[in-house]
Amino acid sequence: MTSSSRLERAVRAIGTLDERAMVLAQSRQDQLTKPRGSLGRLEELSVQLAGITGIERPRFSRKAIITMAGDHGVVAQGVSAYPQEVTPQMVGNFLRGGAGINVLARQVGARVVVVDMGVASTLEPHPQLVNRKVAAGTRDMSRGPAMSRKQAIQAVEAGMEIVEEEIGKGLDILGTGDMGIGNTTASSAIAAVFTGQPMEKLTGRGTGLDEAGLAHKRAVIDDALSMNRPLSGDPLDVLSKVGGFEIGGLAGAMLGAAAHRIPVVIDGFISGASALVACGLCPGLKDFLIASHVSAEPGHREVLRHLGLRPILDLGMRLGEGTGACLGIFLCEAACRLLDEMATFGEAGVSGKLG
Amino acid sequence: MTSSSRLERAVRAIGTLDERAMVLAQSRQDQLTKPRGSLGRLEELSVQLAGITGIERPRFSRKAIITMAGDHGVVAQGVSAYPQEVTPQMVGNFLRGGAGINVLARQVGARVVVVDMGVASTLEPHPQLVNRKVAAGTRDMSRGPAMSRKQAIQAVEAGMEIVEEEIGKGLDILGTGDMGIGNTTASSAIAAVFTGQPMEKLTGRGTGLDEAGLAHKRAVIDDALSMNRPLSGDPLDVLSKVGGFEIGGLAGAMLGAAAHRIPVVIDGFISGASALVACGLCPGLKDFLIASHVSAEPGHREVLRHLGLRPILDLGMRLGEGTGACLGIFLCEAACRLLDEMATFGEAGVSGKLG
Repeated sequence: MTSSSRLERAVRAIGTLDERAMVLAQSRQDQLTKPRGSLGRLEELSVQLAGITGIERPRFSRKAIITMAGDHGVVAQGVSAYPQEVTPQMVGNFLRGGAGINVLARQVGARVVVVDMGVASTLEPHPQLVNRKVAAGTRDMSRGPAMSRKQAIQAVEAGMEIVEEEIGKGLDILGTGDMGIGNTTASSAIAAVFTGQPMEKLTGRGTGLDEAGLAHKRAVIDDALSMNRPLSGDPLDVLSKVGGFEIGGLAGAMLGAAAHRIPVVIDGFISGASALVACGLCPGLKDFLIASHVSAEPGHREVLRHLGLRPILDLGMRLGEGTGACLGIFLCEAACRLLDEMATFGEAGVSGKLG
Repeated sequence: MTSSSRLERAVRAIGTLDERAMVLAQSRQDQLTKPRGSLGRLEELSVQLAGITGIERPRFSRKAIITMAGDHGVVAQGVSAYPQEVTPQMVGNFLRGGAGINVLARQVGARVVVVDMGVASTLEPHPQLVNRKVAAGTRDMSRGPAMSRKQAIQAVEAGMEIVEEEIGKGLDILGTGDMGIGNTTASSAIAAVFTGQPMEKLTGRGTGLDEAGLAHKRAVIDDALSMNRPLSGDPLDVLSKVGGFEIGGLAGAMLGAAAHRIPVVIDGFISGASALVACGLCPGLKDFLIASHVSAEPGHREVLRHLGLRPILDLGMRLGEGTGACLGIFLCEAACRLLDEMATFGEAGVSGKLG
């Protein structure tokens, strides 16, 4: 099996930005009671969001963060500062509302959709946990492919389906997030394949490796790339050889949301790796993505540059989970509230520019 | 009259950051379910806010933006792209809730306190308008001092008193904002005096001057500085010679808030000029200030560098009104909610770092 008709349909369904809505939004921006352009990036965001949604004055009341969890066989090589058991423990923390993503999602009024895409241990059923486990963790990518091509497709399709379920519940804007001990290792490998930049430059300390740990992590990624030789022109090949189940799931979620003209606010380095896979499958997806922030993880800046995405925030964050995406959703909402609610010069009786 | 006992009392009342609260906040950050430091700037902010408030886990439910309006005699020299009548028109817009600041303040749950510090025209009384008019606009600073020293003190004291009134209503965190056609001209002059940097570097297009307009604005500021020779060691001298009533009022608001250990989230270039005056009067004030963003107005970056403040956001905004401060308040709130609400490793049963 080399492709997926379901995936191909989603890719074909992704259109282009709605030029008419963008022109109308820009025209309204230029009539609002402020010097033209004085809201800077927020004005640009509002116009992009009009183009994505096809709505001149978009509003976001139904917000969700999809946080996908998966484990990575490569942790057997000692590439993380934390043990693998932290992945299911943190899923439990998400479900109890005690993690960073829960706090920020409450603040911005977003729901958190927690998905088991491939945690290595068996998680107890929970009403808030979506079980789409592809397998109990990937295989060790330094010894062979992380997963089969079939599993890669399964992960991407699961992401698409989860978004469709969320759309059924009401969804105006989506944030992406991840949890998975070892997933900066997979993401650095993916970034190296797609960007063509030196792997060393794209590989950082993750959750907190020391100098020796970082050198070892780089050697392991080097092994994985030499062993697997992922084909940069075949995103499913890259995902299967050096990816992860949560990375594939997030790629699918991005594609599924864009197919329905729902803006996708992507989080940090892992979401960036997912975006590389997803934009590899559908280059037009890029216009539907908003990069919330640039992570302290060094490869992220290069990933965003390769994607042609400009991060809104640069706060030295590197937590994942969707925490950066939550802040990005707040700023998207601010941009669109300003576009929608501000008075025009005419309405407010304010004089325009001289000369 | 060369000083003010009221002002001196406020300056003496400003203390230092509460080290004990900061140590406790940092210790809690290090126990929360995330890799240490992975929330980046938000962790630093939470610790600073603990130090300002003296509370280990500060929360912000009573938020206000004080937006001060004033006119500038120097607009007679043609230094702005907009006519002076826009100042009172925008005050009307603030009072009707149609301006950018109103939209963002609604989103973050802050009240907007609109103050007439010295609008050139007579404003109709309005229940939401605080009237502290020092005079109907400053005098033309290119021909002589913008105001008397007595008026400068009056403006600063008014700002302190307004904050005290707001504290009486309940206030946990304060944002600053401004409105005043011509006030980037005054702010560039103030910035040149305090930072010692070349005036040309600190002077930008304000609301949208063209190249010729910018050259003229620089020449006018040069005249004002040559004519007045403000003394950088005497902040009230600088304020009176090349300042503005709203700039003095905001300086007073910053001092008044800090004296009560209330964090002050400052907006853009005009608030930065106010901070230069206020920190000139009380260098220790700096620790109580949080720079929400760096403005597109080119002098702002230099002002923040001189103050030793690092902006949280860089979104190319240059609207003023407190719009950047509103976004900054959201991020301060996020930082403190994370500190307060996240589970610790112990509470969540999550394993710590290996080794």
